[in-house]
Amino acid sequence: MPVQLAVSAAETHTYQLLVHHILEGAVLAAPEQEIVYRDRHRQTYRQLRDRVNRLASALTSLGVSEGDTVAMMDWDSHRYLETYFAVPMMGAVLQTVNFRLSAEQLIYCVRSSNASVLIFHRDFAAVVDAIRPHLPELRQFILIADHNDLASGPTEIEYETLLTSGSPQFSFPVFDENAVATTFHTTGTTGNPKAVSFSHRQLVLHTLAVTAALASQPDGQALRRDDVYMPLTPMFHVHAWGIPYIATMLGIKQVYPGRYEPEMLLGLRQSEKVSFSHCVPTVLQMILSAAESKGIVGLGPWTMLIGGSALPRSLQSAAESSCLSALAGYGMSESGPAIAIARYVGDGLDRATALCRAGYPIPLVQAQIVGDDMQVLPWDDKVQGELVLRAPWLTASYCGDLEASQSLWRGGWLHTQDIASIDSNGAVTIRDRIKDVIKSGGEWVSSTQLEELILQHPGVRDVAVVGVADQKWGERPVAIVVGKNEFIDQSVVKEHLQHFVDAGNLNRIAVPAEILFTESLPKTSVGKTDKKQLRERLNDGISSTDA
Amino acid sequence: MPVQLAVSAAETHTYQLLVHHILEGAVLAAPEQEIVYRDRHRQTYRQLRDRVNRLASALTSLGVSEGDTVAMMDWDSHRYLETYFAVPMMGAVLQTVNFRLSAEQLIYCVRSSNASVLIFHRDFAAVVDAIRPHLPELRQFILIADHNDLASGPTEIEYETLLTSGSPQFSFPVFDENAVATTFHTTGTTGNPKAVSFSHRQLVLHTLAVTAALASQPDGQALRRDDVYMPLTPMFHVHAWGIPYIATMLGIKQVYPGRYEPEMLLGLRQSEKVSFSHCVPTVLQMILSAAESKGIVGLGPWTMLIGGSALPRSLQSAAESSCLSALAGYGMSESGPAIAIARYVGDGLDRATALCRAGYPIPLVQAQIVGDDMQVLPWDDKVQGELVLRAPWLTASYCGDLEASQSLWRGGWLHTQDIASIDSNGAVTIRDRIKDVIKSGGEWVSSTQLEELILQHPGVRDVAVVGVADQKWGERPVAIVVGKNEFIDQSVVKEHLQHFVDAGNLNRIAVPAEILFTESLPKTSVGKTDKKQLRERLNDGISSTDA
Repeated sequence: MPVQLAVSAAETHTYQLLVHHILEGAVLAAPEQEIVYRDRHRQTYRQLRDRVNRLASALTSLGVSEGDTVAMMDWDSHRYLETYFAVPMMGAVLQTVNFRLSAEQLIYCVRSSNASVLIFHRDFAAVVDAIRPHLPELRQFILIADHNDLASGPTEIEYETLLTSGSPQFSFPVFDENAVATTFHTTGTTGNPKAVSFSHRQLVLHTLAVTAALASQPDGQALRRDDVYMPLTPMFHVHAWGIPYIATMLGIKQVYPGRYEPEMLLGLRQSEKVSFSHCVPTVLQMILSAAESKGIVGLGPWTMLIGGSALPRSLQSAAESSCLSALAGYGMSESGPAIAIARYVGDGLDRATALCRAGYPIPLVQAQIVGDDMQVLPWDDKVQGELVLRAPWLTASYCGDLEASQSLWRGGWLHTQDIASIDSNGAVTIRDRIKDVIKSGGEWVSSTQLEELILQHPGVRDVAVVGVADQKWGERPVAIVVGKNEFIDQSVVKEHLQHFVDAGNLNRIAVPAEILFTESLPKTSVGKTDKKQLRERLNDGISSTDA
Repeated sequence: MPVQLAVSAAETHTYQLLVHHILEGAVLAAPEQEIVYRDRHRQTYRQLRDRVNRLASALTSLGVSEGDTVAMMDWDSHRYLETYFAVPMMGAVLQTVNFRLSAEQLIYCVRSSNASVLIFHRDFAAVVDAIRPHLPELRQFILIADHNDLASGPTEIEYETLLTSGSPQFSFPVFDENAVATTFHTTGTTGNPKAVSFSHRQLVLHTLAVTAALASQPDGQALRRDDVYMPLTPMFHVHAWGIPYIATMLGIKQVYPGRYEPEMLLGLRQSEKVSFSHCVPTVLQMILSAAESKGIVGLGPWTMLIGGSALPRSLQSAAESSCLSALAGYGMSESGPAIAIARYVGDGLDRATALCRAGYPIPLVQAQIVGDDMQVLPWDDKVQGELVLRAPWLTASYCGDLEASQSLWRGGWLHTQDIASIDSNGAVTIRDRIKDVIKSGGEWVSSTQLEELILQHPGVRDVAVVGVADQKWGERPVAIVVGKNEFIDQSVVKEHLQHFVDAGNLNRIAVPAEILFTESLPKTSVGKTDKKQLRERLNDGISSTDA
């Protein structure tokens, strides 16, 4: 019998771009390729296909049909990958839940998604028990507990038990490519989480365009068939940047690390020969520190695509010292997420500068920088404006929030709220978040630039620069520094910055009058520095350890 | 000023997949990258963009508007590339004309395309003069004559003169992605040429999917940013397999060889460092012979994607001896054309076998083999059936030929008329054309297999096997051989084949009773062996030099 996924005979030559098509060819071409989960479980692509069929079949038996929503709450796992395919392929919607949210936010997210089924890892059993009474629409709970039937009551079933009940054959329907495939909530630092959604067409186009961009990158900056892939961005977060779909389409070996524990990550890298990952700078820093503390010298070859926040030069160079090739990408929850990828081609620009900027827009992306009145600004790598975007995979709206949606799409372009410059070759450099830009004495101060420069001091581990209200200057920059040792103090940092002022690389007024020191910076649920919290603390006068 | 293509403000977040988007990012990222035409002309991507704008602007002045058709008749050139973009981007339709057709066929093709403008190279002036009186709908002729104003009369203008009259700025419209972008006629071996067409959506999806497939191939089998590309399949033929669109999207250096002259091709390879091309086996053979006769030993690194006809093992191995990496692809005019690409990954299958088969379907392609009643046949690399396809870039119909269109899409799948087997990993091997299969004594004989085996004899340069009517056997195979020297004769070939019979690799009844010798085989206008002509000759009893 042909090894293939069932396809409805209703599909004619009006071909729909469906998530289905990402899976089918790869499973065929690489049936024995492996998908690994921690040190616990290994399965082949052939088994992935069977389990996707079983999951869809079992969910159908539970009453899930086209248009229904299934919510998912797991660490990064092979099971998460199964839901990435099975749920959208059924015509249902996958809601990926950020398990780091508060109970209140979780209730808000799951309820607004209209989910009728929740799949959750046993690690989240307590919080699920807490929110369950507030979610009457949830009629079925699927517990991930490795066959341990801890399920409580008739509305709960264990994931592996459920799969056993399903059929390894399932006939997936064909439907319009604009059907919603996934939804999740952005973890903005203001207000309630906002729901974004992506259609099958958007996921397929994102997968193709990012594959075209990544596979054609220079050696050491690329993702190709012979790589081993391990995500280090949570799978609830914009489909782990869409890379699991790409890895599957190419038939690449995939390693899912579950909960991010440094020892486990380093162990998997070594034992499974992981060669491509992606993460926020904080996770990269965590890995480098863990390796250092364990006395591991070389981590390469390991290409690490960095997003979420700017990739500091100091971190990029620390990574390279460990034989790890770190390059920046740019995107956001609303943009699917991939928009641009850095690329070093040896064209005069030094390697660190080339790899630390947001980089070149990937195929089909249109990028512009605009002023307040949407006037298009020149591309000279200097002039800064808000980065606005068009691409076929940008979210169409925030579900149910007309006002925010209109603001997002003002003038027919998606507004990133990032301040950027673009060079004459179209390469994007992010200068700051609009909200984080500091206006001091009538001049713009880039918090990102200051952070970047302060981080270049060898005694600095982490830093955040925020604006605080000031009667004289309007706002003034304050730097909050995490030092590596006791030798770092305010005067050392200021002296360090003065060198850049003297060299003409930093505006004199940008040097923070106040530099505070702390043990660690608050981070958001996706690992970015929580500047909102810092600003609130500072403006309330509750600063941490003063210098 | 930002270096960018003008984009209409009417485009909102309902993003249309337009050919426009293939061009814009690349031109930005690689403005100084080169496009070379023979030893005559060099231009940058920046100039490409300006010239595309000028061409569109000038064509608009000539009255060309959305939905109009512009016919193109040139050798492979930078100007052809300009029409690939400018004409579809205007919303007009590019008709690529096969200049090897007879005057009668040319009239048929140009008339049925409803072209109002014809762009043609001076080399084709005589034939254009001959067909012109029969094409009253053609109201404008654009002559490619390198500024030599040989234009005859008020309806004719020279191409470079025309571009000078155009503006380097042009605001391209945004329209539905399903608008037709290109048309051309398939040069089938039976009946009138049939018109196929491709939409913007189809071209964009083909470009993305083929890029994803080619860029992620193993080293030496891939097309990536640092390659230098030269087409060796005419640009009138299915957009030179779509590779000029891919090369442009990736910002790759492109070399256009004009008329295919072996000395020029070898010279360009060397001087421009060409590293990726594609062609039919005949052209590869021509290049190898030319290199041999000039005493050139190494031709590599040069990756050559082979399509149109099967890639014989003997030719693949001859290519490798010249440091040229030849791999097969599979496609047809109706399929956009790319469907599958061979890949050697060292997984047990030997390199030549892996690289000579049609290979793995590229992303989004669905392939099946079916029997006479459309029953799906098993994938065991042995069972053979007609290869049928689905992909988002298959032509929807033969324009104006309902019956042929229905036959093409019988049962909702595109019928290739190729007999194939598929292995358990989805890799396709083409066994024969349906029309070329020989039924002898109730058994199927594969003409392709016989040709492949006969070509393995070192004394054979070229061969075709066709069936001729036979009272006793129904049909019997006849081989027509082009020898390399006088030592090859019927008995030598038969003895050579007998080895394969003895080894169990060839059915005894497949050994041709009759083997004829000739100086050269007739070829179709795209370089395939014209078996129809051979069959007619043989069945009329007009054989060539008898053995």
